Amino acid sequence: MIKAGIIGATGYAGAELVRILTGHKEVEIKWYGSKSYIDEKYERVYRNLFKIVDAACMDDNMEELAKQVDVIFTATPQGFLASVLTEEILSQVKIVDLSADYRIKDVKVYEKWYGITHQSPQFIEEAVYGLCEINRGKIGKETRLVANPGCYTTCSILTLYPLVKEGLIRTETMIVDAKSGTSGAGRGAKTANLFCEVNENIKAYGVASHRHTPEIEEQLGYAAGKEILLNFTPHLVPMNRGILVTAYADINKEILNGPSAEDVIRAAYDQYYAKEKFIRVLEKGVCPETRWVEGSNYVDVNFVFDERTGRVIAMGALDNLVKGAAGQAVQNMNLLFGIKESEGLEMPPLFP
Amino acid sequence: MIKAGIIGATGYAGAELVRILTGHKEVEIKWYGSKSYIDEKYERVYRNLFKIVDAACMDDNMEELAKQVDVIFTATPQGFLASVLTEEILSQVKIVDLSADYRIKDVKVYEKWYGITHQSPQFIEEAVYGLCEINRGKIGKETRLVANPGCYTTCSILTLYPLVKEGLIRTETMIVDAKSGTSGAGRGAKTANLFCEVNENIKAYGVASHRHTPEIEEQLGYAAGKEILLNFTPHLVPMNRGILVTAYADINKEILNGPSAEDVIRAAYDQYYAKEKFIRVLEKGVCPETRWVEGSNYVDVNFVFDERTGRVIAMGALDNLVKGAAGQAVQNMNLLFGIKESEGLEMPPLFP
Amino acid sequence: MIKAGIIGATGYAGAELVRILTGHKEVEIKWYGSKSYIDEKYERVYRNLFKIVDAACMDDNMEELAKQVDVIFTATPQGFLASVLTEEILSQVKIVDLSADYRIKDVKVYEKWYGITHQSPQFIEEAVYGLCEINRGKIGKETRLVANPGCYTTCSILTLYPLVKEGLIRTETMIVDAKSGTSGAGRGAKTANLFCEVNENIKAYGVASHRHTPEIEEQLGYAAGKEILLNFTPHLVPMNRGILVTAYADINKEILNGPSAEDVIRAAYDQYYAKEKFIRVLEKGVCPETRWVEGSNYVDVNFVFDERTGRVIAMGALDNLVKGAAGQAVQNMNLLFGIKESEGLEMPPLFP
Amino acid sequence: MIKAGIIGATGYAGAELVRILTGHKEVEIKWYGSKSYIDEKYERVYRNLFKIVDAACMDDNMEELAKQVDVIFTATPQGFLASVLTEEILSQVKIVDLSADYRIKDVKVYEKWYGITHQSPQFIEEAVYGLCEINRGKIGKETRLVANPGCYTTCSILTLYPLVKEGLIRTETMIVDAKSGTSGAGRGAKTANLFCEVNENIKAYGVASHRHTPEIEEQLGYAAGKEILLNFTPHLVPMNRGILVTAYADINKEILNGPSAEDVIRAAYDQYYAKEKFIRVLEKGVCPETRWVEGSNYVDVNFVFDERTGRVIAMGALDNLVKGAAGQAVQNMNLLFGIKESEGLEMPPLFP
Repeated sequence: MIKAGIIGATGYAGAELVRILTGHKEVEIKWYGSKSYIDEKYERVYRNLFKIVDAACMDDNMEELAKQVDVIFTATPQGFLASVLTEEILSQVKIVDLSADYRIKDVKVYEKWYGITHQSPQFIEEAVYGLCEINRGKIGKETRLVANPGCYTTCSILTLYPLVKEGLIRTETMIVDAKSGTSGAGRGAKTANLFCEVNENIKAYGVASHRHTPEIEEQLGYAAGKEILLNFTPHLVPMNRGILVTAYADINKEILNGPSAEDVIRAAYDQYYAKEKFIRVLEKGVCPETRWVEGSNYVDVNFVFDERTGRVIAMGALDNLVKGAAGQAVQNMNLLFGIKESEGLEMPPLFP
Repeated sequence: MIKAGIIGATGYAGAELVRILTGHKEVEIKWYGSKSYIDEKYERVYRNLFKIVDAACMDDNMEELAKQVDVIFTATPQGFLASVLTEEILSQVKIVDLSADYRIKDVKVYEKWYGITHQSPQFIEEAVYGLCEINRGKIGKETRLVANPGCYTTCSILTLYPLVKEGLIRTETMIVDAKSGTSGAGRGAKTANLFCEVNENIKAYGVASHRHTPEIEEQLGYAAGKEILLNFTPHLVPMNRGILVTAYADINKEILNGPSAEDVIRAAYDQYYAKEKFIRVLEKGVCPETRWVEGSNYVDVNFVFDERTGRVIAMGALDNLVKGAAGQAVQNMNLLFGIKESEGLEMPPLFP
Repeated sequence: MIKAGIIGATGYAGAELVRILTGHKEVEIKWYGSKSYIDEKYERVYRNLFKIVDAACMDDNMEELAKQVDVIFTATPQGFLASVLTEEILSQVKIVDLSADYRIKDVKVYEKWYGITHQSPQFIEEAVYGLCEINRGKIGKETRLVANPGCYTTCSILTLYPLVKEGLIRTETMIVDAKSGTSGAGRGAKTANLFCEVNENIKAYGVASHRHTPEIEEQLGYAAGKEILLNFTPHLVPMNRGILVTAYADINKEILNGPSAEDVIRAAYDQYYAKEKFIRVLEKGVCPETRWVEGSNYVDVNFVFDERTGRVIAMGALDNLVKGAAGQAVQNMNLLFGIKESEGLEMPPLFP
Repeated sequence: MIKAGIIGATGYAGAELVRILTGHKEVEIKWYGSKSYIDEKYERVYRNLFKIVDAACMDDNMEELAKQVDVIFTATPQGFLASVLTEEILSQVKIVDLSADYRIKDVKVYEKWYGITHQSPQFIEEAVYGLCEINRGKIGKETRLVANPGCYTTCSILTLYPLVKEGLIRTETMIVDAKSGTSGAGRGAKTANLFCEVNENIKAYGVASHRHTPEIEEQLGYAAGKEILLNFTPHLVPMNRGILVTAYADINKEILNGPSAEDVIRAAYDQYYAKEKFIRVLEKGVCPETRWVEGSNYVDVNFVFDERTGRVIAMGALDNLVKGAAGQAVQNMNLLFGIKESEGLEMPPLFP
């Protein structure tokens, strides 16, 4: 059995890790770290796990934890892991970091968008960006540190990747309009996230300034082989879970003038995703919807090619707490330990 | 592998059966029966199961189905199973009926509340009322027909059972005020169930006339050893899943005058439920909430004893599609075939 | 023009007062008191009122305010008004208090249920309980202090009043099962009221201990002419506005044995409510629903008489922020100043 | 008093017309037309109006109605008005048409996008497109036929109009990503609009094919002085009311190279909207949210200029049933009869 520790186990992403790992055959959770609930029984913080999890919350002592477990998941605020990570810890334990600390290779970009000084930039180079379907080959037994991608970024990148990688679109025209359920805002007590403030409402936020922007740009830049700038606009939707991305880009002229842009685009999606268990390219005419992936590790993607405007509208849907956070973290852990990649993640989506 | 067929596989309860059985190690679904979607691919009716279920919907030919499978689940409108069931079918296959056709022993009561003439009353006697935690001993390899309990009834009965069985309350004072999510209303296209009609609203319905009333009365009557009349009032809540029961009853005078009514009541709950995997008696002061059981087969129960009024307020929460329908149906199937009772049902609740 | 001041203008009830008074022809708001947002523009706290209200929030200096306005609405936490009220203030200004400070005549009952020492019990006797339809005659130009009823209590009392007043029920059997939208929980930043915690959930809370219990008991006690004890159980519903009360009571034997309990009960409701603008007794068979009163000052009531059990199930629905708080406060203000009672309150309910 | 008739009074837009006109001082509704509820009391179809509206539903006989009233509102399916309108009717009565029949000047465009043959194209030329803030000058006592704009179109056009009119953007880069509450889908009983299908979900629909596309293109084309093609993508949001538009466009080079694009853009919005009662240009940094306009005739607009990409993200929010349908229809009626434009429409937004 793999021994796992979770730092930040009482946030929504941490609790989803607990839910998923509880059903994982080869893992046992040894440490439920929590800043706010130390010594409190975990089942009292998340009563869905009453009589399922029998443990008290521990502190977030990474050094001690590193000695006791094989893998640590850090579902912590930005800057936490960077401030405590040491070579000694990394020499003892694998880490899957759900925060943004090691996602962005250029430390200046990180510091600019996050407004934090990075406390341990020496580990950035080593960290692997854990978007499993794309970077699977880089994650294995020798990997020590995985930067688990953000929820919006996972959805945005997977929605656009085949188009960018195959050079089908004018990348400078890319626009990502994203919509998220409210669990993405975390469990902190803020007036803006109260039921009556979120319910019966939709709004954009972080327009032209959301921190997931440079992460999307960097990863799609690797696919494009060039620097990318794009607009990313997140919206808050009155639902618990789910992210929907609606992305726009102009199709390249040579494709537009070719025989069938529609077919070329579909072929690109199939080329990259046909064999992927967790990425479902939908049938023509079917739009991704968050309800069809809720509670699961699936990402549904599809596109519409608009002949009138020469644009493609690419869409993707995932559960922000699963494929957008805890599910992908477990998928990464499976890769780290050479376990079947889908172990613990095979539950079908829950509907309604 | 047990071969299973589902009649009514495209209703919400049927789809939940599919979701659960997909993760059940010892079952394969051979027949997705549907009146409305014959020949349509199942994954197009429930797109959460896209690329997970690869089969087309079939008709509802019970005779043919009986030859091909080991167990049939009927998630069908009232009266359907009664109108097609024959001794020949029952001699070939086990049936777990999610409708009300065989739940009520007195056919006149059934006919009065449901307004239907029962087409095959000869099987009523044989049918076992499949409330697993209470009737487990009656469900086994020799059982042919299980009447799977209603959603409201499962919750109401399990909430009140220890009080009634142990004679702690004046049964003539029992009142059940129940609240249900909207999936209980089914997937039929009715104006009353449109999003804008249900959202931002709560209402009672079927007041003093809901069909689950006699079912609750009959089963609690067995526990009490006498006839029971009570009020049952269901309410429609703007959420997808979940039933909450708030039940009221006067505590018997001898208990009130005894040393500690609180302790006596808690002892009764523990006596019946302490060893039950799927019934969680909560800690004192914690009220059941539907969010803590969503997506799972758990029932959370608890009570408050009000010294001022001498009443007990007993509460229970379950997921109407799982323990209130498909989950309990699978639990019954496990009992029918001598499999571990919780097989396929061990997923923890999903929150948020 | 009546000059009005609001203390606690930035809570939900305070904001609803602002919304309603903005459309009231004979009132102008001179003071937007707020503990948390002093000097902030009101339109930035409630952006629905952007470009509609042009004023900054003020402090909660009652003495100063009393000199400037004709009426003060206090939409403040329990204990606030009691701690600042003086004879001098009351000699200068009328007060409509939306808190519980002067609702309960027996100060010991108040102190027990609220856990606060009452700071100015000398004004309790004078205060009029402002349930307009019942106490209208006591509220006029000479009245100085109105205790505006609670949201649950308004709904509970109006639902049961004719039954109690006419002696149709055994009052010792009364049970009030109430369901409320989440705006009733206020705008304070608490984890329990976050969107993801309330959405897709229903729960009871404050079982056998909610503070509105003694208020209901006292007022119904006046109607009954005797002391009343009852069970009141509130529930939290995932919607913004609305309270639904489902109340149960045994019909008195003499009524049961009479010619038609149904007719007798209906006659009682008509007797008290037929001429009331804001109380709508629904047609037989129609249950009150919160959606039909949202945004308005209406209360919809109706009942079902259950012959089987001899019980009546009485139901009532209102908007907790209007008839349950700000609307009734304005109705009381209208009575205080001899204005048409419905002035400013004639907007029809908003649906959907 | 103006006598008004409504055809389609029992749809959501029709019911909103009733709600608004009920509070309009100079109008009385004489005819509640309904295809589905003829002879049924209106207050039984919309129980929010119980004891407020005392009338039965009538048929949709336009000829008869034209003789009895001064203005007819047609809140009817596409094609209805075109199929019954005659010169005789128009000579007797003013018509405000909430359907799309007379919105699009090029009948071929209408027929292509709507898939209907237009039955009375002779009236298209005469019809005035009733976007009040832009076409106010064309709507007056001599006007006979107003084509009331669509909900998405009103929001999209008003959000982008200053940018297009002032030539600040490259119109060929315009993208409109819109999100709507579910009342926009109407009250018809469709499975796709059931509570459980809409709740906890977000999806795009009608991608590259929604019928409001040509309407937006035509009207913005007039502002631009040239033909416009754009992408419009609507999404369905789990809320009752509200439309949010997030629109993207590249800023023209000359503006980008000028002193301050931000200031130039803001000046354009102020130029057109500063004096408009119902259009609120929000403060810098504040994004429009549907909750702040719910139940009212306001449109909130704002923009973010993204220096990194040279794009503007323009946003607008309105209540689809008010400014997006019935409210604007009443605003048009006020213009038609020379009444104060905001009469009947001055209610502030309802929050929460």
